[in-house]
Amino acid sequence: MAELLYEGKAKQVYKTDKEDEYIIHYKDDATAGNGVKHDQFEGKGVLNNTISSIIFDMLEEAGIKTHMIEKINDRDIKVKKVEIFPLEVIIRNMTAGSFCKRLGFPEGVVLDEPIFELCYKNDDYGDPLINSDHAIALKLATREELAYIRDTTLKINELLKEFFLKLNLKLVDFKIEFGKTENGEILLADEISPDSCRLWDVDTNQKYDKDVFRQDIGDLIQTYKAVLARMQNK
Amino acid sequence: MAELLYEGKAKQVYKTDKEDEYIIHYKDDATAGNGVKHDQFEGKGVLNNTISSIIFDMLEEAGIKTHMIEKINDRDIKVKKVEIFPLEVIIRNMTAGSFCKRLGFPEGVVLDEPIFELCYKNDDYGDPLINSDHAIALKLATREELAYIRDTTLKINELLKEFFLKLNLKLVDFKIEFGKTENGEILLADEISPDSCRLWDVDTNQKYDKDVFRQDIGDLIQTYKAVLARMQNK
Ligand SMILES: Nc1ncnc2c1ncn2[C@@H]1O[C@H](COP(=O)(O)OP(=O)(O)O)[C@@H](O)[C@H]1O
Ligand SMILES: Nc1ncnc2c1ncn2[C@@H]1O[C@H](COP(=O)(O)OP(=O)(O)O)[C@@H](O)[C@H]1O
Ligand SMILES: [Mg+2]
Ligand SMILES: [Mg+2]
Repeated sequence: MAELLYEGKAKQVYKTDKEDEYIIHYKDDATAGNGVKHDQFEGKGVLNNTISSIIFDMLEEAGIKTHMIEKINDRDIKVKKVEIFPLEVIIRNMTAGSFCKRLGFPEGVVLDEPIFELCYKNDDYGDPLINSDHAIALKLATREELAYIRDTTLKINELLKEFFLKLNLKLVDFKIEFGKTENGEILLADEISPDSCRLWDVDTNQKYDKDVFRQDIGDLIQTYKAVLARMQNK
Repeated sequence: MAELLYEGKAKQVYKTDKEDEYIIHYKDDATAGNGVKHDQFEGKGVLNNTISSIIFDMLEEAGIKTHMIEKINDRDIKVKKVEIFPLEVIIRNMTAGSFCKRLGFPEGVVLDEPIFELCYKNDDYGDPLINSDHAIALKLATREELAYIRDTTLKINELLKEFFLKLNLKLVDFKIEFGKTENGEILLADEISPDSCRLWDVDTNQKYDKDVFRQDIGDLIQTYKAVLARMQNK
């Protein structure tokens, strides 16, 4: 049996017999509001793993360096082991969520330029917003690493926007994570799925993401299945 | 009688007979926690006006462009009228206050480099932290204006650090405001005083600023008088 290294809110991380590889196992749990709201949805893990793996393959092919080695089965992927920067790296193309709540700004406004945002990935403090100077002071990353992360994230945004637009979905915002391998290479890690993206139908603005769970406005499994269906019929 | 244009938490702003000049009148009010804590201290307005005017004169002489025209009397200064950027511009040389509370970081740590921070000056939303991309998206300032504000603030920090160190006070952090004149010039505005700076005695770390009021750990008037006394005996 592989050794469980870390149990997160939506996934588990396992050691493998290779020193520099991990297995990530997708669970059926959904959480919101920093774990305050919590539920299980049969099949969610399979959907997120499938969706995320397709997206990571697409990004790799487009030249983004990711942790992805291979999808092993419905719920498991093999990845390069990294030390995760304790940063939630966020891009906003349209206004929604915490941005609107914190600043009293209307939802659904298209931004002239994407907003790049950093949060300190720390559940005890509610993943608070920080700026680059804070990240450096907290020694979460160096100024050079942050510059690379910002550049790469903006590239990823362009690739994802185009990818989802072909599925008739607007990429409102998303959260990603980066990590560093033992030889200092920075890789896109974690997952990209309807858990971590806001996706709105181009024609109807219907939500195809975890907001259906956060706001109790739809069936999570049906919603995620609809995203995957669009990806497979592309 | 001059027309009252704006009544703030600590000051009033009056029109003058010149279109491009205002009078700022210092009140005796002290507030903390976004106005939740509120009190009056006889003589506070006089102290802050005196301290701030000395500091603005020093900064002007060192080449910083400020709104200062002249101190009129104990409680009033004449300033150039600006449109204030709705930004609280903050520098931290040591950790304290909201930085520590939000991020679970110990107080009193000397930072390798100063932290530059922006908050959206908006009492309804509790002056929330933002980053430059947010400020631009909210149209609070342009990218060029923010670059100027950052550069100027770092210069002001060096001047203030030196100024206070001569008084045996460490400049832990401070908040300033900038505004724009009708012909587009960006000026340092508002005030610089123990209301808006954290000042710790070099030898004892005793607090010489509004934290004595926020934390009920000392007499505000005696504290501010002590700061002014150090400035006048310099
Ligand atoms: N390639 C990787 N190497 C090491 N850790 C990773 C990698 N990719 C993702 N992780 C981490 O694995 C965990 C995945 O589980 P998750 O349920 O998302 O946890 P959390 O509740 O902390 O977000 C996260 O902490 C994530 O940062
Ligand atoms: N030169 C200036 N021109 C116009 N407004 C100014 C100038 N300097 C400061 N102000 C504004 O005057 C007000 C001063 O009152 P204050 O009690 O500090 O208000 P607040 O409670 O809004 O902080 C502030 O809103 C400040 O932004
Ligand atoms: Mg996670
Ligand atoms: Mg003020």
